[in-house]
Amino acid sequence: MNNCQRLLISTLLFLPSLMIFADCGTLRGTGDLLLIIERMTGSVVIAETTNNTKLCQLTGLGDLSHASVVYSRDQRYAFVFGRDGGLTKIDMLLGQINKRIIQSGNAIGGAISQDGSLVAVSNYTPGGVNIFSSETLELVAKIPTPKSSKSKKSRVVGLTDAPDKRFVFSLFDTGEIWIANMSNLKKPEITKFTGIGKQPYDGLITPDGRHYIAGLFGEDGLALLDLWHPEKGIKRILGNYGKGQKKLPVYKMPHLEGWAIAGNHAFLPAVGQHKVMVVNRNDWTQEKAINVHSQPVFAIGRPDGRQVWVNFAFPDNDTIQVIDTDTLTIVKTMTLGKGILHMEFTPRGEQVWISVRDKDQVVIFDTQSFKSVNTLNVIKPSGIFNTSRAHKIGL
Amino acid sequence: MNNCQRLLISTLLFLPSLMIFADCGTLRGTGDLLLIIERMTGSVVIAETTNNTKLCQLTGLGDLSHASVVYSRDQRYAFVFGRDGGLTKIDMLLGQINKRIIQSGNAIGGAISQDGSLVAVSNYTPGGVNIFSSETLELVAKIPTPKSSKSKKSRVVGLTDAPDKRFVFSLFDTGEIWIANMSNLKKPEITKFTGIGKQPYDGLITPDGRHYIAGLFGEDGLALLDLWHPEKGIKRILGNYGKGQKKLPVYKMPHLEGWAIAGNHAFLPAVGQHKVMVVNRNDWTQEKAINVHSQPVFAIGRPDGRQVWVNFAFPDNDTIQVIDTDTLTIVKTMTLGKGILHMEFTPRGEQVWISVRDKDQVVIFDTQSFKSVNTLNVIKPSGIFNTSRAHKIGL
Repeated sequence: MNNCQRLLISTLLFLPSLMIFADCGTLRGTGDLLLIIERMTGSVVIAETTNNTKLCQLTGLGDLSHASVVYSRDQRYAFVFGRDGGLTKIDMLLGQINKRIIQSGNAIGGAISQDGSLVAVSNYTPGGVNIFSSETLELVAKIPTPKSSKSKKSRVVGLTDAPDKRFVFSLFDTGEIWIANMSNLKKPEITKFTGIGKQPYDGLITPDGRHYIAGLFGEDGLALLDLWHPEKGIKRILGNYGKGQKKLPVYKMPHLEGWAIAGNHAFLPAVGQHKVMVVNRNDWTQEKAINVHSQPVFAIGRPDGRQVWVNFAFPDNDTIQVIDTDTLTIVKTMTLGKGILHMEFTPRGEQVWISVRDKDQVVIFDTQSFKSVNTLNVIKPSGIFNTSRAHKIGL
Repeated sequence: MNNCQRLLISTLLFLPSLMIFADCGTLRGTGDLLLIIERMTGSVVIAETTNNTKLCQLTGLGDLSHASVVYSRDQRYAFVFGRDGGLTKIDMLLGQINKRIIQSGNAIGGAISQDGSLVAVSNYTPGGVNIFSSETLELVAKIPTPKSSKSKKSRVVGLTDAPDKRFVFSLFDTGEIWIANMSNLKKPEITKFTGIGKQPYDGLITPDGRHYIAGLFGEDGLALLDLWHPEKGIKRILGNYGKGQKKLPVYKMPHLEGWAIAGNHAFLPAVGQHKVMVVNRNDWTQEKAINVHSQPVFAIGRPDGRQVWVNFAFPDNDTIQVIDTDTLTIVKTMTLGKGILHMEFTPRGEQVWISVRDKDQVVIFDTQSFKSVNTLNVIKPSGIFNTSRAHKIGL
């Protein structure tokens, strides 16, 4: 069965969900919108968090495995980064594809510049970063990466925006972190850090935009860059963080961008172990580890930092656990169905939206009472992305 | 004709009053909008930060001295709290007053609940808090305050929202802090802290929604409440913070809600002194004081925390200073004209909008280069409020 047939079948099965197209196209605020990835069918759903309803569905977005989304500064447009190099600009108000290009053969996420003018995509095939005008999706700059041993340009991962018109990203094959200052578009100023560790596979920037941290697939520990002091170079932190000596079976490398920050603590999903690590943010040392249900994938903080919600790798991906960041204990365990892939909080944290892929559902919970508020039918949902991301640094 | 055009035409036909507001009324995102108070004329200007232009002006909002604004969770509606007890709901897209009520004789600000359903107003005459449906502005609850010695209900100040459907506020005349849990609207659950200090005159909540801090007009020090541990009661911090023994002339009590947070430091405008205090956020002790131009009024952090912008009390209110939070030094001093009343950063901090009242201007700066980006003509501008406030806790 090809993608097209799959889409046809799902479309017929979920016909009722397609009947609500009418709800896009009206004059409305954009602060309570979100976009849900339907990976299998190459489609997305636009929904809203005030009444917790779906507004419309859009098809034709290509391969959306590992897809991610950033928003224009006015929150009207979503930029969807597909796995097949597709970059799709969606009009969240009209519920239409505004523009779609295939910008490479294989890509892994992207970022939007601080001023909203540039969209950058990190590529696997070929490597390097492509930078587009957010208005037209016209290519405005290319940042090529060095050739790796396989005579291919190094793959790029962990691409994020940073204050002062910069992008920061890691080079998987050559073990580097680069800062690209885009103040002068015709001549991006690149600062390169080499030998940062083997195979950086993902990166994150702290919510204040100061620290960039890359996870290493090829060795233990994390590479830390203080963007306020790039002259100090890369520091290795949490030397035990990684797959370790015992080479535990790792079902899925945890997502770094999901790191939760609460007060002086950062909460990190451990690699391969059934633990969430509690790290001191001042010196980046481990203070504690909290035993959890299985191998964590995301550990995402409620916007006020009081709770951290954790999901898990296959085969234990039917469970959610909630950590109280004050007592550092698990206060809730819920079994929601197989394939819990992502969680997204409403901007002020009163609700959380959770993708349960194998039940074709997005479930919405009140985060104070843990009561279910609503359930939406969504075809094999994966990532969920709130428009309030438009206002955040480093996404 | 597409949906957008159809909508625009019907909107314009249906609402002749829009003809004078040519730039409001179109289908557009709401993430880059802001509202500027024109205090003297009882009017407001709606503007946008993508191209830095004014969109339209609305009149008839009454006495806007000390006016403040919160936003609906979808960012379509602004709630403007006037000094005369007026509560005005503005449609930011249509550029119209949606509803306006006079809810008391004299009021001082308000807040919107975490879920966006309730708007609360803190009143001077009579005292107490009135709570309205954000949709209809219908009065849904009243929280009366105790009578003070003058046989009037205590005035309410420093009203903010807090996580888990709570409002927190201070009672000026009786020296109390109250938490109102609005989970059950028919029976708000009030937790009262008495004897917290003389004449709390303003309050703030930390960005994570955990700590509520009230400034005291009648004595030195600040009253701190840990909302994660209300059972621990009120703690007095920064015992020297205030007017002090020497009773320096204080031209204007600083605004507490402007406190900047960067890493482990909070930056506080000192009372009466030409200093900004650097406070350790972990134990709330003073670490340092930075000498500044005059008596500070607001010390507002750029969203990434790297800069703190400070304005000053009369007669030195023509100057802005910028503190680098890494080196704790002043990196820029600018003289912009008399009556610099407020500063508002764009959500990711690349620009700052500054009201210069006596020049009838709002000036916009790039925060990295300190270069002027644009200047807008606005009548006696005071407060500036970005729609991204909709997504923040404790505003």
